[in-house]
Amino acid sequence: MATKRYLMTPGPTPVPPQVLAALAEPIIHHRAPEFRPVYEQCLEQLRTVARTESDVLLFGSSGTGAFESAVANLVTPGERHLVVSAGNFGERWAQMTAAYGADVDHLRYAWGEIPEPEDVGARLRESGGAKALWIVHSETSTGVVSDIEALAAVGKEAGALVVVDAVSSLGAVPCETDEWGLDAVVSGSQKALMTPPGLGLVAVSPAALAATGSSPRFYFDWERTRKAQAKLDAPFTPPISLVAGLNVALGLLLGEGLEAVFDRHVRLGRAAREGAKAMGLELFSPDDDRSAVVTAVRVPDGIDGKEIVRTLRDRFGITIAGGQGELMGKIVRIGHIGWFDVFDITTTLAALELTLAELGADVERGVAVSRALAAFEHATA
Amino acid sequence: MATKRYLMTPGPTPVPPQVLAALAEPIIHHRAPEFRPVYEQCLEQLRTVARTESDVLLFGSSGTGAFESAVANLVTPGERHLVVSAGNFGERWAQMTAAYGADVDHLRYAWGEIPEPEDVGARLRESGGAKALWIVHSETSTGVVSDIEALAAVGKEAGALVVVDAVSSLGAVPCETDEWGLDAVVSGSQKALMTPPGLGLVAVSPAALAATGSSPRFYFDWERTRKAQAKLDAPFTPPISLVAGLNVALGLLLGEGLEAVFDRHVRLGRAAREGAKAMGLELFSPDDDRSAVVTAVRVPDGIDGKEIVRTLRDRFGITIAGGQGELMGKIVRIGHIGWFDVFDITTTLAALELTLAELGADVERGVAVSRALAAFEHATA
Repeated sequence: MATKRYLMTPGPTPVPPQVLAALAEPIIHHRAPEFRPVYEQCLEQLRTVARTESDVLLFGSSGTGAFESAVANLVTPGERHLVVSAGNFGERWAQMTAAYGADVDHLRYAWGEIPEPEDVGARLRESGGAKALWIVHSETSTGVVSDIEALAAVGKEAGALVVVDAVSSLGAVPCETDEWGLDAVVSGSQKALMTPPGLGLVAVSPAALAATGSSPRFYFDWERTRKAQAKLDAPFTPPISLVAGLNVALGLLLGEGLEAVFDRHVRLGRAAREGAKAMGLELFSPDDDRSAVVTAVRVPDGIDGKEIVRTLRDRFGITIAGGQGELMGKIVRIGHIGWFDVFDITTTLAALELTLAELGADVERGVAVSRALAAFEHATA
Repeated sequence: MATKRYLMTPGPTPVPPQVLAALAEPIIHHRAPEFRPVYEQCLEQLRTVARTESDVLLFGSSGTGAFESAVANLVTPGERHLVVSAGNFGERWAQMTAAYGADVDHLRYAWGEIPEPEDVGARLRESGGAKALWIVHSETSTGVVSDIEALAAVGKEAGALVVVDAVSSLGAVPCETDEWGLDAVVSGSQKALMTPPGLGLVAVSPAALAATGSSPRFYFDWERTRKAQAKLDAPFTPPISLVAGLNVALGLLLGEGLEAVFDRHVRLGRAAREGAKAMGLELFSPDDDRSAVVTAVRVPDGIDGKEIVRTLRDRFGITIAGGQGELMGKIVRIGHIGWFDVFDITTTLAALELTLAELGADVERGVAVSRALAAFEHATA
C-alpha cells in the first residue's frame, strides 16, 4: 500500500474532497451565466468571512501577490510607512515596501516576539506618523498571532491606514475587519480557506481605495479589479476552477459557523501544545489561545530539526514544517489551519513521539495523545 | 437531461479529463519530494513547447500578469519602447507599458489588420530605435496571427529586445523562441496548454535577464523566480494543483507531438473557415493557414452578434465569443485552441447554421459540416 499522506504544514493545507471535486468540474467561461452565481456567492461569502461590508478583491496570485497589491496601490515613493516585523513574513513586507520606494520605518522584533501596541505607538509618535501601518496577524514562521485589534487602534489613532497580513489567519482566528477599522486585509486561498494555492484576496476599505498612490501597477490595480467585480466581471481571466473550489470551501466554513470554526482552532491549538508539553517538549510559539494557527516547538538539544521533518515524512507520510531563516533546524512547526480535526493532531503527535524517541531524544512516552484529546475536549471560554 | 456544454471560446478552453483528474488530487506541499519531479518535468516540458533552452518562469497569475512581469522587469521610466497593436490585447500592452512610465511609441493598426515588418522597421528608424519591441503573436480579439519571425527580425536588427504576447498561440502555432531570437515569450495555462486559468509563464532570454530596469516589482521579479526555479523551488507558494494539471496537459501535447499539434490546428482553422464560407458568411480573420487559433466571422447584416452568442449558448449549450471593444456585435469568434478535434468545429458550425437561419439570416443550409470535414481531411503542406 502506498503511504497514506498527512499534510500538516501551515499552508498549503489539506483540501476537503468536496472542494477537490469542484476543481475537477469542466471549465466554464468566466462570463458565462453559470459562472456568475458561483462568483457572486464566492465574493459574498468572502465578505462574510472577512467580516466586512467593503469589497474583497480577488487576484489570481499567491497571498504574497495580493499583499503586493496593497503595496503597489498604497505606496508612493518617498512616503513614510511603518512596517512591524517579528518573523519571516513581516520582514518580507518590509523588503517589499522598500522595493516600492517607501521610506520604511521598520520596527523589527526578534523572530517569535509579540509586537506590542505601546512600541508601535511610541514609534509613530517619534517618527511623526506614517501613511500606513503594516502588521502581521499570524506570523506563520513563528506561530505568533498578534493582537491586531490593539495594534490597529494605535495606528488609527495616529491617522495611519492599517494593512494586515491575514494570510494564515483569515478563517482560523477572528479578524474583525470593519469593527477594528482595518483598511486592507490580505489573505490567500491555501490556508484556513481550504483551497489549493492560486487565489489571493484583499478586503479594501473606502479609505484605502481613496488613498491610492502613484506606483506603477496594472494586474494588481485595485480600482480596475473593483470596477470589474462590481459588474460581476474580472479584469483578466480569473482562476475559474479555484474560484469554484473556494466557493465550496467557504460554504463548508460558513456551514460550520465562523464562531464554531474559531473555537475548533483554539482547541486544536490547545491539543497541539498540551500534547507537545506532555512529551516534555518546549514550546516556541506562545502558550496562549490566540496563537491557534501554527504550533512551533523547540527541537530538543542535540537533535537536528531537519531530521525530524525528514523522518516524519519518509517513515510516516506526515509533512510538517521546519524553521525558516534563522530558526532553521531549531524549531518544527505543526500547522492546524483549515480542514483539521483533533485526530490530525494526535496522529502527528504520536508520530513525532516515535520519531524523537528513535532519534535519541529524551521524551515522555505514551501521554501526548491522551493529553491532546483531553485539551481538545475542554470547552473554551 | 442537463444541456451538454461545448466551450468554444479562445480561452478559457476545454480541459482534458486527465488534466481535471490531476486537479482533484490531494494537495502535496510544493517543497515535498513528491512535487519536485512534477515541477521539474513541467518546467522542462514548457521549455520544449516554447522551443527554448532558456528558463521558462512560472507565475501564479493570468497571462496578463505574466505579461506584466515583462513590463515590470524591462521598463525603466522614460525609456522608449515600441508597442505594435492591431486589436484589444496589443492595446492593453500599450496601456500597460505606459502605466510603467515608458515613453511608448505606439504603432497602432486598426483592429484586424496584420502588422507589417516594413512598418515596424520604418518606425524604429524614424524614432531612433527602442529598448524593446512589443508584439502580439495571436491577437485573440481579431483572429490574426502575425508573422512573428519577420517582425522579430526587424526588431533585432534595430537592436531592440523582442517581447511577444504568445498567450493564445503557444502550443497551437509554431513559436521558435530561440531560433527567432525572441527575448520574452509570454503565455498562460488556459489556452492551447489545455489547463484551467491561473498560471502565467514567460520564457526569458539571457539578454532580457541582463536588461532588467528599475521599475518596482517583487512578486513578478524575474530574478527572484529564476533563482528559486534553479533550485526547483518557487519564491512564493505556487498554484500546486494547476502545476500538476499543466504537467499532464503538456505530456498530452508532447505525446501527440508538437508538429502534429500545429498541423491539427491548421486543419481546424481550415475547417472553421471553409464551413463558415460554405454557409455564405464573410470571414473577419484572415483566410490563411497561419491564423489557426481563432476564426472570426462577420455577423450578417441586420443580425445582432450578441444574439447569435446568446442563442448558441442558451439553445445549444455552445459558448463562442462575441467581438470585443469596437467589434462588439459585429463579429463572432470561434476558438479552436487546445483540446479540439474537427467534431467540435462541425458541432459549432451546425448550431451556428441553425441559429442564423432562426434569426432570419440568409445562409446556405446543409453544406457547412461536410465542407469543414473535407477541409480538415486535406493534408497540409
